[in-house]
Amino acid sequence: MSFHHHKLPNGLQIIGETSPSARSVALGFFVRTGSRDETADVSGVTHFLEHMVFKGTPRRSALEVNLDFDRIGANYNAFTSEENTVFYAAILPEYLPQAVDILADILRPSLRAEDFDMEKNVIIEEIGMYDDQPMMSAFDRAKRVYFAKHSLGNSILGTKESITALKRDQMQAYFERRYVAPNVTVVAAGDFEWKNLTALVTGRCGKWNSGPVGRKGVRASDGSGAFEVVTRDAVAQEHVILMSPGPPAHSLLRYAAGTLGMIVGDDAGSRLYWALVDPGLADSADMSFHDYEGTGSFYTSFSCQPDNAAKNLVIVHRVLKAVQLDGVSEEELQQAKSKILSRIVRASERPMGRMQAIGMDWIYLGKYRTADEELKAYDAVSVKTIRRLLEKYPLDRLTTLALGPLKKLRRVGGNGRG
Amino acid sequence: MSFHHHKLPNGLQIIGETSPSARSVALGFFVRTGSRDETADVSGVTHFLEHMVFKGTPRRSALEVNLDFDRIGANYNAFTSEENTVFYAAILPEYLPQAVDILADILRPSLRAEDFDMEKNVIIEEIGMYDDQPMMSAFDRAKRVYFAKHSLGNSILGTKESITALKRDQMQAYFERRYVAPNVTVVAAGDFEWKNLTALVTGRCGKWNSGPVGRKGVRASDGSGAFEVVTRDAVAQEHVILMSPGPPAHSLLRYAAGTLGMIVGDDAGSRLYWALVDPGLADSADMSFHDYEGTGSFYTSFSCQPDNAAKNLVIVHRVLKAVQLDGVSEEELQQAKSKILSRIVRASERPMGRMQAIGMDWIYLGKYRTADEELKAYDAVSVKTIRRLLEKYPLDRLTTLALGPLKKLRRVGGNGRG
Repeated sequence: MSFHHHKLPNGLQIIGETSPSARSVALGFFVRTGSRDETADVSGVTHFLEHMVFKGTPRRSALEVNLDFDRIGANYNAFTSEENTVFYAAILPEYLPQAVDILADILRPSLRAEDFDMEKNVIIEEIGMYDDQPMMSAFDRAKRVYFAKHSLGNSILGTKESITALKRDQMQAYFERRYVAPNVTVVAAGDFEWKNLTALVTGRCGKWNSGPVGRKGVRASDGSGAFEVVTRDAVAQEHVILMSPGPPAHSLLRYAAGTLGMIVGDDAGSRLYWALVDPGLADSADMSFHDYEGTGSFYTSFSCQPDNAAKNLVIVHRVLKAVQLDGVSEEELQQAKSKILSRIVRASERPMGRMQAIGMDWIYLGKYRTADEELKAYDAVSVKTIRRLLEKYPLDRLTTLALGPLKKLRRVGGNGRG
Repeated sequence: MSFHHHKLPNGLQIIGETSPSARSVALGFFVRTGSRDETADVSGVTHFLEHMVFKGTPRRSALEVNLDFDRIGANYNAFTSEENTVFYAAILPEYLPQAVDILADILRPSLRAEDFDMEKNVIIEEIGMYDDQPMMSAFDRAKRVYFAKHSLGNSILGTKESITALKRDQMQAYFERRYVAPNVTVVAAGDFEWKNLTALVTGRCGKWNSGPVGRKGVRASDGSGAFEVVTRDAVAQEHVILMSPGPPAHSLLRYAAGTLGMIVGDDAGSRLYWALVDPGLADSADMSFHDYEGTGSFYTSFSCQPDNAAKNLVIVHRVLKAVQLDGVSEEELQQAKSKILSRIVRASERPMGRMQAIGMDWIYLGKYRTADEELKAYDAVSVKTIRRLLEKYPLDRLTTLALGPLKKLRRVGGNGRG
C-alpha cells in the first residue's frame, strides 16, 4: 500500500492508494455538494443534476456515455447525499485511461434542455417509487422534523412540485457555482500507477474553472424535540424513527458514536435486537450514527405491525434510558470492536471499499488514514469514552416520527429538554 | 489459489479454495433443501427452520449463539431459496476454529418448543414486512402463477396461516430428513489451511447422521401462460412481472441465458433501460435469468406509475419480440461480456464472492471451476449460441403478473402457445 496526493493549479485534488494485490481499480469523483447546499427554490437540484451528468456532453450523447462505460465493463454509478455527490466506476486496471476520460468528460455536462425536460419524468418516477418504500419516506420526513430549519433537513430528492417547477438555468447556475475544481477530489484505490493517474486527470481536468467554494449554515443541531405521526393508509407496517444529537464528522468522539450505535442497534446481537426483533415484536430495529460537517445524529428506528408500535416505543425508550444511565459493559464493547475490526478488514480487501474510505477521510478530516489507523482509532474507544459521549450527547434528547397506518401514537416520556 | 475436496464417511462434503492474498476467510454450510422440497402442509418450514437454527443447541442458548459469533466479530447470516439453505460467516483467519465450532453446532439445533412458538411471531412479522415491499410480493405471486403445480412455485416464506398451523414435530421430521450429512457441503474460501479445515469439520460433523437424499419433481416447466392482475390499493406503483422459460442449471446454455439477461435487462445500458427507464416511463426495468435444478426462467419486470403500466407492457412486448426475431448484435454481446468479465474479477477479490461461487458450482455442476474457467465459459457465448437459446426457449412464451392499484390491465399479444 502506498498513498499519494496532488493538487492541480485550479484547486482540484487527486488522491490515491495503490495496492498491488488488487485485481481491479476503483475510481471516484467526489463533488462536495449536496442537498444541504440547496435553497428552497431549487429543492432536489443536486440529485437531479447527478442524473443529468449521465445525459451527455459536447463530446458524448447519453447513449454514448452508457456505451463507453459498457465497453470497458465498468461497474459505475453515482449517489447524492446531504453533503456529497459522488460519481464512481470499478474497472479492470487496463481501462483506467478510458474511465478517467469518461468520468472527467461527464462532469462537464451539456445540460441540454430536451434532456432536462425528459429527465424530470425519471426523477418524478423515482419520487413515486419512494412511496412504496415507507422506511425511506419516514427517514426523509424524520430528518425534516428533527433538523427543522437547519439545512441538513433538506430533502435529497425534492418534491414533485419542486422538480416540476425547476428550470434548466437554475440547474446551470447551481452547477457553475458548486462543480468548480476546488470542490472536486478525484480518488483512486487498487491496482494502478500513480503517475499515470495524475497525468490522465491533469490532462482532462486541468482547465476546469476554479472559484470560491464554501458551505453555509454549518452548525450543530440538537433537534426540534417534536413528536409527529404521519398517517399513510397505503402502508402496512408502522415505521418509527427516533433521532438524537451526536458529534460532528471532525470530532474524535465519532468513533465512540459508531461503536455505541453498534452496541445498541446493530442488526444482530444488539440491545434493540434482543428487545424487539428476537422476540418477534418488530421486523427490524436499528440504531446507527451519521456524522456531518458541524453536527451528527443517531437514528434509532423500528418497523412493526401497527398494534405493536406503542408497546415497542416504550421498550425503545427503556433501552435508551438504560444506556444513558448505566453506559455499556466492557464485554459489549469488546464484541462491538471485534465486529468493527472484521468489517474494516473485509472492506479493505475491495478497492471500492478503500476508495470510499480514503475519499471520505480526505474530505472530512483533510488527511489520509490507512485501514490500520482506522482500526486503532476504534480500538482506543473505552467504556469511559462512551460515558463522555453520552454526557455530551444524551440519548434521551429525542425527536420522534412515525409513519404508517396509525392515526395516533402515544408519546413516551419528554424530549430530554426538562 | 488451490482447490481441495474431501468427503467424510457419512457423506458430508468439504471443499475449499485457498487464496494467500486474502486477509479474511469465508465459510459456508450449504444444505441442499429449499421451498421446493416442502409439501403444502408445511409451507414455509425451510425458511422457518433456518431461523430456528440460530435459536440454540444443547450446548448453546440463542443468546450464546449470538454472543459467540459476536466475540469473533463474524459477519454471519443465512438465506433460504427454492433449493438451498445456506449458513455462512466471514471472519478473520485466526477465528476459523471458533467459526466451524459455532456453525457445526447450530446446524444440529434443539428446536425447543418455547423458542419455536416465539419465533413464529418473528416469521409472521417478516411476512408482514413483505406487504410493504410490493416487488417482493409480486415475485412470490408470479412464481406461483408461472410454475402452477410445479414445486418451484412454492412460497419461500409460507403464509401467516401455514406458519401459524405448523407444529414443532413437523419441523423436526423435516429437519431429520433433509439435514442429513450427504445433503450438506461445507465450503471455505480465502486465507486458511486446508488440513486445519478438514480436521475441524471432521471433528464437529463426523458423527452426523447419514441417510438417503433426493428431490422430487425435478422437471422442466414452460410456465402456465396465465395473465393475472392482483389489486392492492395499499401500493403506489404498479409492479409487473413477465416470466418465460429458460435452461436448467446444468445446461451449457445457462451462460448464454445470463448474457442475454444482461443485454435485455441489465440495470443500465440494456434494451429495457433505454426503452423504459431512460425516458422516465418506469422507475425500474429489469430482466434476469435464474437457473434451478431441472429448469430455468427469465424474470422480466418493471414498476411504474399505474397510468403508464399498459403502455409500458406494450413496449416490453415489443422489446422481447425484437430480440426473439433478430437476436442480439455483436456489439451488444461484446459489451455484455466486458461487464460480466469485470463483475467476475471483482467478485473474485472477495473471499465471500468465491465461497458462494465455488459452493454453487459444486452443488449444481458437481465440479470446481476457477474464476478464469467461469470467464471462459461466458467468453465462448456467441451470437449464434444466443440464437440457439432463443429457439429452444422463446421469449414470447410469457406468463404475466401485475400487482398494484390497477383493477385491470390490458393483455398484450398471446402467450406464445399459438
